[in-house]
Amino acid sequence: MKEYYMMEAYKEARKAYALKETPIGAIVVFNGEIVGRGYNQIELTNDPINHAEIVALKNAAKNLKRWRLYDCEIYITMEPCIMCAGAIVNSRIKKIYIGAGHKKNHIVNKHNEYKLDIYRDSKIEYEFGILEELCSSILTNFFKERRNLY
Amino acid sequence: MKEYYMMEAYKEARKAYALKETPIGAIVVFNGEIVGRGYNQIELTNDPINHAEIVALKNAAKNLKRWRLYDCEIYITMEPCIMCAGAIVNSRIKKIYIGAGHKKNHIVNKHNEYKLDIYRDSKIEYEFGILEELCSSILTNFFKERRNLY
Repeated sequence: MKEYYMMEAYKEARKAYALKETPIGAIVVFNGEIVGRGYNQIELTNDPINHAEIVALKNAAKNLKRWRLYDCEIYITMEPCIMCAGAIVNSRIKKIYIGAGHKKNHIVNKHNEYKLDIYRDSKIEYEFGILEELCSSILTNFFKERRNLY
Repeated sequence: MKEYYMMEAYKEARKAYALKETPIGAIVVFNGEIVGRGYNQIELTNDPINHAEIVALKNAAKNLKRWRLYDCEIYITMEPCIMCAGAIVNSRIKKIYIGAGHKKNHIVNKHNEYKLDIYRDSKIEYEFGILEELCSSILTNFFKERRNLY
């Protein structure tokens, strides 16, 4: 089932890709059901907050009509940035499933350890490496394509 | 001028107070002009993302029609949580002015040092203690009132 849900997050990442946005996707699951979806759309919306995770969390809160998502899980194609890690903690999410870990060129790459501290201290469970190659390769391809444009 | 802008952020915090939301306010300044305003409204909107800083950043990006706010400053009545600290970094904000520092009972209180690392590494300038007592006392009063209800 983990792979099934991560594939749904990956489909969100593909939507971002098609829009020339950095291809990251996220979904929120409650009781086995997908209640929130999101893909990165900061360029499209001209909004620095609209990362995949944020869009998915807002969508889930809207659908469930509550902001405390303590009984929900989130699937993310890439390890979250500091903002999104904090947003997941604030939302009281129970467990985080991550596709690809950070590689390089990420604004907060050097803070990986801090973020894991955030998760640990806030008692959020987390699991890395679900469909890792797929989630990672869409990003690699995206940046390769972008570089070739210039 | 710092005090003038912080007072405007404080006015936002008062709006939150009136709505029984944790009273935190923020404003974004570009070229001397207030281009973004926000107060904490997570209960009102049932949305875990709608902290004062996030609302102000989204508002500024919308008004300026761009998400990179590298020439803007943000005034916040309270030291940001991890999510908002990350959002400020992601938005490329130039300088952060903070009213009150964290005291206790904050979800990420123990991460104060990490957050300062975020600021330092991302080269964001920051300054603490603008109208500190005012920004701090509205929070103290709020929590005192809430406790007396039960």
